[in-house]
Amino acid sequence: MHDMHIAALETTITAENWSGQLEIRSALDGRVVNSGVERYKELNKTHLNPIESREINDDTILLRVQTNQSKIEIAQAARTRVFMQENTLDINKQVVQEEGYIAHDFKVELGEGESVSIEKIVSPYTSRDHAISECGLEAENTVVQVGRFEEILKDHALAWENLWNRFHLDISIPNKEHRTEQILHLYTFHLPQTLSINTKDLDVGVPSRGWHGEAYRGHVFWDELFIFPFLNLRIPEITRALLLYRYRRLEKARSTAQIAGYRGAMYPWQSGSNGREESQKLHLNPKSGRWIPDNSQLQRHVNAAIVYNIWQYCQATGDLKFLSAYGAEIILEIARFWASLATYNKKLDRYEILGVMGPDEYHDSYPDSKKPGLNNNSYTNFMAAWVLCRALELPELLSENRWRELCALLDLDREELEHWDEVSRKMRIVFHDDGIISQFENYDQLEEFDWDGYRKKYDNIQRLDRILMAEGDTPNRYKVSKQADVLMLFYLFSSEELGEIFGRLNYPFKYETIPKNIAYYLSRTSNGSSLSRVVHSWVEARSDRENSWKLFTQALETDMGDIQGGTTSEGIHMGAMAGCLDIIQRCYTGIETRKDMLLFNPMLPEELKELKLRISYKGHWLDVTITSGEINVQALPSAARPIKIKVKDKIFELKQGENKTIQIE
Amino acid sequence: MHDMHIAALETTITAENWSGQLEIRSALDGRVVNSGVERYKELNKTHLNPIESREINDDTILLRVQTNQSKIEIAQAARTRVFMQENTLDINKQVVQEEGYIAHDFKVELGEGESVSIEKIVSPYTSRDHAISECGLEAENTVVQVGRFEEILKDHALAWENLWNRFHLDISIPNKEHRTEQILHLYTFHLPQTLSINTKDLDVGVPSRGWHGEAYRGHVFWDELFIFPFLNLRIPEITRALLLYRYRRLEKARSTAQIAGYRGAMYPWQSGSNGREESQKLHLNPKSGRWIPDNSQLQRHVNAAIVYNIWQYCQATGDLKFLSAYGAEIILEIARFWASLATYNKKLDRYEILGVMGPDEYHDSYPDSKKPGLNNNSYTNFMAAWVLCRALELPELLSENRWRELCALLDLDREELEHWDEVSRKMRIVFHDDGIISQFENYDQLEEFDWDGYRKKYDNIQRLDRILMAEGDTPNRYKVSKQADVLMLFYLFSSEELGEIFGRLNYPFKYETIPKNIAYYLSRTSNGSSLSRVVHSWVEARSDRENSWKLFTQALETDMGDIQGGTTSEGIHMGAMAGCLDIIQRCYTGIETRKDMLLFNPMLPEELKELKLRISYKGHWLDVTITSGEINVQALPSAARPIKIKVKDKIFELKQGENKTIQIE
Repeated sequence: MHDMHIAALETTITAENWSGQLEIRSALDGRVVNSGVERYKELNKTHLNPIESREINDDTILLRVQTNQSKIEIAQAARTRVFMQENTLDINKQVVQEEGYIAHDFKVELGEGESVSIEKIVSPYTSRDHAISECGLEAENTVVQVGRFEEILKDHALAWENLWNRFHLDISIPNKEHRTEQILHLYTFHLPQTLSINTKDLDVGVPSRGWHGEAYRGHVFWDELFIFPFLNLRIPEITRALLLYRYRRLEKARSTAQIAGYRGAMYPWQSGSNGREESQKLHLNPKSGRWIPDNSQLQRHVNAAIVYNIWQYCQATGDLKFLSAYGAEIILEIARFWASLATYNKKLDRYEILGVMGPDEYHDSYPDSKKPGLNNNSYTNFMAAWVLCRALELPELLSENRWRELCALLDLDREELEHWDEVSRKMRIVFHDDGIISQFENYDQLEEFDWDGYRKKYDNIQRLDRILMAEGDTPNRYKVSKQADVLMLFYLFSSEELGEIFGRLNYPFKYETIPKNIAYYLSRTSNGSSLSRVVHSWVEARSDRENSWKLFTQALETDMGDIQGGTTSEGIHMGAMAGCLDIIQRCYTGIETRKDMLLFNPMLPEELKELKLRISYKGHWLDVTITSGEINVQALPSAARPIKIKVKDKIFELKQGENKTIQIE
Repeated sequence: MHDMHIAALETTITAENWSGQLEIRSALDGRVVNSGVERYKELNKTHLNPIESREINDDTILLRVQTNQSKIEIAQAARTRVFMQENTLDINKQVVQEEGYIAHDFKVELGEGESVSIEKIVSPYTSRDHAISECGLEAENTVVQVGRFEEILKDHALAWENLWNRFHLDISIPNKEHRTEQILHLYTFHLPQTLSINTKDLDVGVPSRGWHGEAYRGHVFWDELFIFPFLNLRIPEITRALLLYRYRRLEKARSTAQIAGYRGAMYPWQSGSNGREESQKLHLNPKSGRWIPDNSQLQRHVNAAIVYNIWQYCQATGDLKFLSAYGAEIILEIARFWASLATYNKKLDRYEILGVMGPDEYHDSYPDSKKPGLNNNSYTNFMAAWVLCRALELPELLSENRWRELCALLDLDREELEHWDEVSRKMRIVFHDDGIISQFENYDQLEEFDWDGYRKKYDNIQRLDRILMAEGDTPNRYKVSKQADVLMLFYLFSSEELGEIFGRLNYPFKYETIPKNIAYYLSRTSNGSSLSRVVHSWVEARSDRENSWKLFTQALETDMGDIQGGTTSEGIHMGAMAGCLDIIQRCYTGIETRKDMLLFNPMLPEELKELKLRISYKGHWLDVTITSGEINVQALPSAARPIKIKVKDKIFELKQGENKTIQIE
């Protein structure tokens, strides 16, 4: 963790009740293939071409390979040393070489009771690394200079200690819940392991399955939406770096929008290396063995998620420099995209978004319609209106000079801004059944689904889409959701914020709308996405604490219990992992970062007696302790400016070094 | 300027008084060699290996080459189109191919009075670029999609307009000085042309001769010291990016220090791609044709410059995030290096730095001594003390949490900090002649130089070192400087700051010390470095305005008049160019960014009647107008917090949108 160019392994073998000769091989293998996902196995799985392998010295070998499409060179040198009782054994090693493979073979004589330790240090470099001369040369020089295993371990442990210090999260629950704590720690571990301080200077995005498995081939989806809010309050530098990954692909998103006939920037649903759309057009149903059309690239809502992420980052950090230099340009171009995607319905005097998909992948078109996509997906329309509001707020947040610069750069004038304002006030949201936000227009006309019947018929109906398709049916016909995308709104926004946008849109909104919609959609959801339980636990936190905790503990099992039908071996579910942590961090504490304030509104589940966390906010480190009766906030000493904190309805200022305790009823 | 992956050229040929056939060739040439510097010509000058060349379509060709040591691939596609009166001519093109070279040849018939326009668009990519799939593919796709020349030109012009808006500098001087304005504009142009917004996301440093020529082979020296203070008040994001270049090489600087027997981090004098020392050990005197030992790598003072640059950037921007995440670690490691380099002189109860070189390259050892380096170079010792003070200030600027993290990471304890404190108070500075700061210990024992005699004997004695060496003599024997490095102190620090450090060191310091030292050293300096006139003009600004302006106008001629002995063809002198701009920006205005304030202390030369500039400070854009009688500061509207401004002795607060005029006597 302290140096991404070093990997180390120490293996000790003790001859407990025997003696004899050990044969040991220490290799670098460039013949590895991608075969971790069953259904991809028939596709081309060899992605490395060998370039060179050679022995550097008696201890050290080198292997260079190159990825066969992107032409990235990967060089590794491996130093292998053998120790007996802390003495280096001077052993003659044989070189074994095959195409794309090199190894050192050697033999060790071991007497009964004797131990031998084999230390293998590898230095991986790629041709895309910064501050290198040539990656093979760096690999060679690094491994020759590096110290012993113990030294590396010490530095590695220290780097992790610093990370744990930043990710401090301490829940106090009864003994039987020890597993909950364990899993939280495991997921906390995976977050900085995947979104690493070591890659923050590289052009790296958030792959939905981490670096752990090959599902989705490393493509970048919208999982950031579930990850960044947690990360923003821990190591926001990492979020910043990951947002830059999006900024670098803004030009591509612009040309993608243009080719599709829109203005502004349209980021793809599945983003490949250079920001191109990588969503498949056909999708294999492993249940039926049939290839079916896949409209998932119509999930334009990823563009709203990107704006949400920029906004959250800036709110949590106060980093207006980032907003000015990078964020604002993305926000404006995405706002422009939404405005150009929206069409005016004269009869209703409303703007509509037609032919898209919401996050709920069970619905990609109307039943019996040949046209892909749905009209007026509420989540998408709401988010589009919200994005336009954020774009219109930018002149207040940027310097006049930068605002003018951006207007000139993007050829943005008053007339266009006025149009955005209008669209943000007249976006259509469809309702049915007296206050139910329709997942999309005409959702109410779909058939109710026979949940009981199917639950009896199949063990697990999480992937109802595959079941129905295999039966020749389609979820498009029914009021069923993989994840209920209307509920995403209650996940992303507090009732105050919802009220603001609905008010702007001139639609009635009462607090009761929330539990009513939750009840409606939860009973029509199969939880087919790893993200759905996170969202559902979150939205229940204030109306049904017990069910929220139940859903939370279920969500926690996503990778620990591999409950997504054995998909953990194909990679961890990054969004679900971070989402679980964030239920503790932001949902049960009611933490929000809005209007230049840090808001608390705690409502701990019965099971959580006390919660301690350390968060980063606008340059401060805050130690927060919450019980059912009170909340304590301690601002660690720093040079950061005083911040405003709001607990329930009370607002107060907190200076560095200060400590405040507030009673909560 | 708006897209680093596009280069465009439009050539129009009109047959004014003839008619006939034109033969045109549009090529991509990978056979270019580095032959721009006469004295390097005998060295290997071929640095590109051809990989592939092919025709993509009737308009487009592709060339791929690779640098032969660093293995960076460079791909370019070129699209050539021919237009007559806005109609595309559909001309048959012949492909011409040679090793590492490809061209399109074609013929055009031109009648008398007719015009033909040839548009050539090239898309350069390298394998190190971000957001790419594979560089050849990107080059091909880009050039196929890109628009017409006029569109590219429009976007390019707009990007430049934005840059000019940021670099606004308006001097009002009599007509005869029009050349001064012209040169200032030319140098302003070269700054963002070289340290570009386009490279701020790449791993790029500041080459002392820009990208314009091949002298010093692109190595990174200390020129940043003369460039960043100007840039910090214009586009600080670029400074930040260039400081990250140093951060990425911190690990290398650590191992360089360790190998040399020191602690902390020691950055090299001439930094190569991966941060290794690239200073030559032998140096060719073109005057004598002899190779002589070169001790220039003993210029350890580059390490102080790096800290100074980080500090200035943070003061101008208030970017504590950068300080916390990157800057502080460099500062601490360099402080540690200085403390380990300093040796204790028990007799004097002082710390000394022995065997180094100051910025004045005429002195690299004592006369007749075989030991390289000099003892107690005042510039170096003073800067080392200053660096230690900045390191000791860090706990106040960082959060307690980050400070603890850094202490653990660097294994830094109270005892070591106490040692730094002691060294920062007991560093030795040598004086002679009642208040002259000795350039180094025993400088006073050197012989006075026969300036008049040599000025008569040689036309130009700027490079006195080469003249003396060719005579079998050495500048080491004389009180002569290429640039007077004691005067660097007055360039970098105000008298108030100098007083603070000298006071801490328990040495007497009066304001009169400054003019006295200036007079002493200016009369012993040959101005052999392009940077010396900048420094000398600066330090004279307050004691001899007339001479300051004279030196300034001489410094301005560095590249415009090519007065460094014809070296401009080997590359521009980046430091001198930016230094000239900064004389206007900070020296004559007395602008400093210190103690959380923006300080003004203007003293315009007679020739400058009015000065208008736009500067960026802590998120504000400030329009500043200065005349001999008053100063006006206008804070453009923004969301930035109020700032403190000090004009002479008066301190006031300025809010965004506010405008203040202050009379100055």
